Amino acid sequence: MSKEPFIGMDPEEFRKTGKEVVDWMADYLRDAEKYPVFSRVKPGDIKGQLPAAPPSEPEDMESILSDFHRIILPGITHWNHPGFLAYFANSASAPGILAEMLATTLNVNGMLWRTSPSATELEEVVVDWFRQMLGLPAEFHGIIIDTASVSTLVALTAAREAAHQQVRERGLSGRADLPKLCLYCSEHTHSSIEKAAIVLGIGQDGVHKISSDAEFRMNTGALATAIEKDRRDGWLPFAAVATVGTTSSTSIDPVPAIADICQREKIWLHVDGAYGGAAAILPEMRYVLDGCDRADSFVTNPHKWLMTPMDCSVLFTRHVGTLKQAFSLVPEYLKTTDGSVNNYMDWGVQLGRRFRSLKLWFIIRSYGVHGLASMIREHCRLARHFAARVQADKDFELMAPVPFSVVCFRYHPAGISDESSLEHMNAQIMDRVNAGGEIFFSHTRLNGHFTLRIAIGNIATSENHVNRVWELVKAEGDKLKQR
Amino acid sequence: MSKEPFIGMDPEEFRKTGKEVVDWMADYLRDAEKYPVFSRVKPGDIKGQLPAAPPSEPEDMESILSDFHRIILPGITHWNHPGFLAYFANSASAPGILAEMLATTLNVNGMLWRTSPSATELEEVVVDWFRQMLGLPAEFHGIIIDTASVSTLVALTAAREAAHQQVRERGLSGRADLPKLCLYCSEHTHSSIEKAAIVLGIGQDGVHKISSDAEFRMNTGALATAIEKDRRDGWLPFAAVATVGTTSSTSIDPVPAIADICQREKIWLHVDGAYGGAAAILPEMRYVLDGCDRADSFVTNPHKWLMTPMDCSVLFTRHVGTLKQAFSLVPEYLKTTDGSVNNYMDWGVQLGRRFRSLKLWFIIRSYGVHGLASMIREHCRLARHFAARVQADKDFELMAPVPFSVVCFRYHPAGISDESSLEHMNAQIMDRVNAGGEIFFSHTRLNGHFTLRIAIGNIATSENHVNRVWELVKAEGDKLKQR
Repeated sequence: MSKEPFIGMDPEEFRKTGKEVVDWMADYLRDAEKYPVFSRVKPGDIKGQLPAAPPSEPEDMESILSDFHRIILPGITHWNHPGFLAYFANSASAPGILAEMLATTLNVNGMLWRTSPSATELEEVVVDWFRQMLGLPAEFHGIIIDTASVSTLVALTAAREAAHQQVRERGLSGRADLPKLCLYCSEHTHSSIEKAAIVLGIGQDGVHKISSDAEFRMNTGALATAIEKDRRDGWLPFAAVATVGTTSSTSIDPVPAIADICQREKIWLHVDGAYGGAAAILPEMRYVLDGCDRADSFVTNPHKWLMTPMDCSVLFTRHVGTLKQAFSLVPEYLKTTDGSVNNYMDWGVQLGRRFRSLKLWFIIRSYGVHGLASMIREHCRLARHFAARVQADKDFELMAPVPFSVVCFRYHPAGISDESSLEHMNAQIMDRVNAGGEIFFSHTRLNGHFTLRIAIGNIATSENHVNRVWELVKAEGDKLKQR
Repeated sequence: MSKEPFIGMDPEEFRKTGKEVVDWMADYLRDAEKYPVFSRVKPGDIKGQLPAAPPSEPEDMESILSDFHRIILPGITHWNHPGFLAYFANSASAPGILAEMLATTLNVNGMLWRTSPSATELEEVVVDWFRQMLGLPAEFHGIIIDTASVSTLVALTAAREAAHQQVRERGLSGRADLPKLCLYCSEHTHSSIEKAAIVLGIGQDGVHKISSDAEFRMNTGALATAIEKDRRDGWLPFAAVATVGTTSSTSIDPVPAIADICQREKIWLHVDGAYGGAAAILPEMRYVLDGCDRADSFVTNPHKWLMTPMDCSVLFTRHVGTLKQAFSLVPEYLKTTDGSVNNYMDWGVQLGRRFRSLKLWFIIRSYGVHGLASMIREHCRLARHFAARVQADKDFELMAPVPFSVVCFRYHPAGISDESSLEHMNAQIMDRVNAGGEIFFSHTRLNGHFTLRIAIGNIATSENHVNRVWELVKAEGDKLKQR
């Protein structure tokens, strides 16, 4: 530290320490497997090692980094580990990390065009590259938002505005002229839709969950019937949310049929492709976005399957005007005379906007579209490979189709049909494998069945890892049998 | 690049490139002043240099970095430049950047305790350190959110929930039992409050703006009167927002008197201290948070005045239970058996949560509380120093008190009283100084007067910079006089 701590670290000290940190980062990216993927600490273990009060005087960077290694690392569940197969696995790739280093140093806030023209214009270009990669129509324009939770909130705020009920000005409460608003999604829709509905004042009662078919896809007949009945009952339907790659089973809602209904009923169609959307980069999987060209808004997250460090979600819409109509508020201190430039702050909730397009630019260029497609193709192949092993084993069963890189399965030996026994056994298998430190995976529930779920999505996950999880799961199953 | 691009960059290549990037970062942090602070590019200049379509094949990191320097940098407005005095100036400090490098590499999603116990527990500890530094009571608990825009949205969602109108379940629309909800803020409140009200379905009509006194502080008499009148008129007041450090003039609303009213009226008090809150770290400025111990929620942004790279906003509340009541939704795939741990995803909108506590931990430890206080103290001294020069010059006038590090002033030579002439002259001064590349500042409007505004907040801004902006402004004023 400098003698005057408020001046900051000496640039040469920063240079030296920064390079030591890069050495650690390179080692980590090479050797992430040496860590137990799922943290083994107990609640309170980390907290108990940290002082309860902040230091008054400066501390050396050396001791801070040493505490990072000694205290923080053991409490990390390693998302960037090739054995991470839980939730939707993700990756911080090398090009993405390099870009984040630069973006953090510049510390740009891209709220207005003038607060960094490069941030706005690179975002416009890179999201348009991404649009082309996904095969979405040219009338879709995109904005980078932190998470799909907020992207969806923004999309549904616009959808509510598009219902022409003067909600921006007059709100929703205490209005005798306003029917009760509702939106539609399947029972497999991500919780962020319901959360958005809560925030928007639609309420959980206004989230009308449509049943799914045997493969966890929204029943469009039920959707049409629900809208008709709801209108009769005095509701005002304003949006439907379809999912391409649901979180539990990665099922794909029948978007073309849903788009037909939305078009006929004049309600906003939002498509959540947070995870699955990326697969449309593959020519042979382009079909997963069938019908999405007719959506009003579409979200997909490069920070899930596209090797982009957290956070980076892209919201596309054909109705930028409606987004601005819902959100634009320009106080005097943000007024500019820059003319017809794009000020992304007008498109959503957040005024503060990190320079997130930089990492997406680095990644698309570093891997090329074919490179990105190769990785996704390989992950899908690995998932099918694992699914084949499940299907070939009489003690295990596949619980859902495998359209992407997620496999839902369970241990189900002959002669056991009691659901609570099966749940107990499968939970045991999961907990024991996860405790081993090589692999971390998670569960879901499908048709009431406790279901094991592996999600392949880390850049470094190879066939060896997938074979290993099968070995481990199989071995735990065999142990249960022997009792 | 590896031969198989989907595997990612070779670790040794990453190590080498990472160190080159660190070299550039160190040079940049040392020499940021060599860049024009305010980007000189014209709309479209950056976009015009970027290919309209993404590359199919991988490109070298060398050419990507070269394009970063050649194309992107000229379009950057340098927020991390000591001459950046616009909006609320901020800093990415060396310790914060090092922490971001590590956080990006780990790429943790701290949604659940188990998805990285260190992320959750370090966040709990560091926000409690921060609470102590600000002198807030122990019953305040904190969460790190990306921006104050979202922190405020979360706080006001909780406030709406606290009004016991079953909004989470039943929503706001089509309810004959529900009066029209409203909230209060001053006419100087940040636009994020109004944006939150739009999203929440309160509507702009439900944002009741209370007049301010001559020093831009909310008139509490007017607040009490408005609530009384609104209740008579059938409104349901549910929240008031007070600001400590308004964006235009950094005025401080009379929080103790507002807290009295909120307590009496049983409405939620949210305090926006996004910028000003940090000053409470100084014992001699602790008073800026007088009354905030009685708030229901309080937000302040380390990414503004506390040298923390974007993004990092801390929301404190004494009602964590209400936040969870408003937001908690736990789908099966996120259910855990970890017992009574804290899962921060239950506290707000976002499920994806970057490991932001790491940078705040690095910064508080690197500088120490006294080091952070010294920087803020110096910035406030520089602002008073600048204000004194303004006051001593007969051609300039101070437009607002200077409680923090922002100075509002204008050129106003004797004999000119026409407001549109004054506006034109001041806008000219601003544009000309900004075009020079040494200094970038912005404007606001106070009591209808176009007002110049310098905001001191970058770690490297020194008395020399503040003297220089005065020289430049003064010289432009003199030029106008000579015509």
